[in-house]
This record gives sequence, structure tokens and C-alpha cells, in this order.
Amino acid sequence: MTTSTYPPTSRTTPTRLRERVAYDREAVHAALDEAVLCHVAFVADGAPVVLPQLHVRVGEALYLHGSTGARAMRQSLEDGLDVCVTVTHLDGLVLARSAFHHSANYRCVVVHGRAVLLTDPAEKDDALRHLVDAIAPGRSDHVRGPSRRELAATAVLRLDLTEVSYKSRSGPPGDDEEDLASPWWAGVLPLRSAVPGTPEPAPDLTPGIEVPAHVSAWSRG
Amino acid sequence: MTTSTYPPTSRTTPTRLRERVAYDREAVHAALDEAVLCHVAFVADGAPVVLPQLHVRVGEALYLHGSTGARAMRQSLEDGLDVCVTVTHLDGLVLARSAFHHSANYRCVVVHGRAVLLTDPAEKDDALRHLVDAIAPGRSDHVRGPSRRELAATAVLRLDLTEVSYKSRSGPPGDDEEDLASPWWAGVLPLRSAVPGTPEPAPDLTPGIEVPAHVSAWSRG
Repeated sequence: MTTSTYPPTSRTTPTRLRERVAYDREAVHAALDEAVLCHVAFVADGAPVVLPQLHVRVGEALYLHGSTGARAMRQSLEDGLDVCVTVTHLDGLVLARSAFHHSANYRCVVVHGRAVLLTDPAEKDDALRHLVDAIAPGRSDHVRGPSRRELAATAVLRLDLTEVSYKSRSGPPGDDEEDLASPWWAGVLPLRSAVPGTPEPAPDLTPGIEVPAHVSAWSRG
Repeated sequence: MTTSTYPPTSRTTPTRLRERVAYDREAVHAALDEAVLCHVAFVADGAPVVLPQLHVRVGEALYLHGSTGARAMRQSLEDGLDVCVTVTHLDGLVLARSAFHHSANYRCVVVHGRAVLLTDPAEKDDALRHLVDAIAPGRSDHVRGPSRRELAATAVLRLDLTEVSYKSRSGPPGDDEEDLASPWWAGVLPLRSAVPGTPEPAPDLTPGIEVPAHVSAWSRG
């Protein structure tokens, strides 16, 4: 049975600022779904590597998209790949009266686990549809689907959401009592990300094709 | 002598899409400076971990900020910590006529190296000043500086910019010739990040303190 929280493990239990950590599935799902990209870390030749990737969450699975030529994807072809996937939303700058209490308001999801390469063509096809819809919801009905050759050239990894933590900070700065009367302005500067501009049609677009609603009304967060 | 590019190494040489990779110092500096946060990957107990952190670039050094209680910081207390630091700017969604050619426009800097903990108080004090100014330029003149106790509780890591790559994509979708006449809209939806909202004064702010220019005129990118 699925509970409403992810069970904590040693590596999802923080060593500090415990009050900022939670395991709530709903909050995790919302943060993952709002993000257009994630950062995927893996170990290559003993050293850490972290790269941005497009992702989509479907239920309790996270699908990651890459080329079969990419280093991480080649490593994972056989046994799967130990990864850490992190999604971070920067919600604001926390400007305190003291240098020490400067911070950021954020929401951050960290997922640990072994990513496995999809081999079942139906699951892969389905995941790719979800990946296109993650870029712009509804988009997969407005594209030419992948050919067999394209499917073969695309690698999709699945990472199950089992070892997951959610860390966040919100609200005003937490200055020390003795600094409250100081002459400095303190507060939060809210920040928004993934703010869409005006759609730019491809230069070779057939004249007369209107910008579809999934593009003109695109928004996130 | 400093050249205008970072010398490529085996791990900063891509296995695919070579045309998207560069080593230009100016582009790397600009992308690092525009970003409010980076993602820092390291290996803990053999497994990859990636976490967001605030950073600042000073010349050819990147300073990373954390608490001495944090796991990564404790690991690095002695010999330094092998890290990969990645900064990603998502500039737009690339909506192609084919599912396969969907992509993102982005700029991404990847730095590999060993981060070392600052021990010299003067360098640490200086780095913290830069870190505060990285949050909001000029801010360090409008705060109470760190006490000795606060300095001791703050860990700053330095990572020299020696093994660095810059990857980017820009421009319209790259659809296949045979898809150009298809009925689907294709183009780019530009995205902006770190778009500031209205400053929110701390609830306990002394009345009469105006929002300073480094907050009201804050912008990035």
C-alpha cells in the first residue's frame, strides 16, 4: 500500500536543519511536476558528474531522457546506474540584517536510486509521450511520433520514487534578536522561474499555422 | 598565462553533439555569474549525491557556501572533496514537428575538480563578502558582517576553474526535411528565470527603512 510519505533512510535524513526536511509525496510530486529540468548525478571513473536532463514523473516513477550515445546512458545499459536526481525551485532571496542569515527560499527534491534503461518498446513509447507532454502538456497530440529508428536511438531511464526527500525554506529572514533594530533593510525578494516569453515560430514554418494553445497558454508553477 | 579558453580534458570532451560544447572563459564566467545557484555533486559512501548551493565566482575561483554541519562539508574538512559543479540556464523550449527533435535551449557550465575548505580567515571573510554580493550586488555594504562565532560556523569551499566545459543550444528546432511540410506548429517558447517580484519587507522591519536600490533594481541575466 502506498502511504502519504516516503520512508526516511539514512541518506535522506539530514544532519542539520531537520525542520526543513519532509517526505510528503504530494509536495514531492508537485515540485517534480513543476520543474522542466532536473540535475542527474552519477559516478564515472570514481568521480562525480552532474548534468541537466529533461524528466517526467508518472505515478511513482521518474523517467529521464537522453541519447544512447551519452556517457551516462552507455554506463547504464547493463545493470542500471546509481543516480541522485535533484530538482530545485528558487523561490526567493532571503536578505537578512546579518551576512550570516542570508539565505534562499526554495523547494528541493532529492531522489536516490538505481535508474534502469527501458527495454520494453511499449513502455518506452509511452514514456516518450509523457516526456513530450512534460515539455508542453498536450503537445504529444501535435507532433509526428517516433519512428522505429528514432526509438532505437533514444534512451529512456526509469527511476522509481522510493528513497526521496523534500527540503524547503520559506518565509522572512531569521535574524538574531540583537540585530532587529539595525538600520539595514531586511526581507525577501521573490523570484519566479520558467516565465514564458513570446513564442518564436520556426523560420521554415508553413504559413498559416497558428500558435496552438498548449504553447500560447503555457505556464508552470 | 591565462588563455581565453579552458584546455579540454577527457571528461570535458563530449562523446556526442560536439558542436554544442565550448571552452570559452568569457561564456563560462557569464553563465556562472548569472546563476543564483549551482548544483554540486559529490560521492558519499560510493553513491552520487547532488545538492543545490549558493556560489560566487571570483576570477578563476568558484566559492561554495555551506554549513560546517553539512555532510559534504564534513567530508571535505581534511583532504578536499572531489566535486562536479553544474550551472544550467533554461532559455527556452524547443518544440519540433517530430517528438524526436524536441529539445531545450540552454546554457550549461560543468566544472570538475577538488574543492578545498578555506582555512585562512582573511580569504574566508573575503569570500563571504563576495557570496553576499552574489545574492544582491552591493548588499555586503548593507549588512552586519559575520562575528567570529558565525565565521567559525560557516564553511566555504573553493574550487579552481581549471577543468571546465560550456554546453549550449540555441535557435529554432532542427526538424528533418521530410517533416517540414507537416501540419504541426514548430518553434521556440523562450523562458526567463529568476524574474523578481515585489520585495517583501520582514514583518519586524523597523518602520521607515526604504527598500534599497540593490533590492528594488535587482535583475539577473
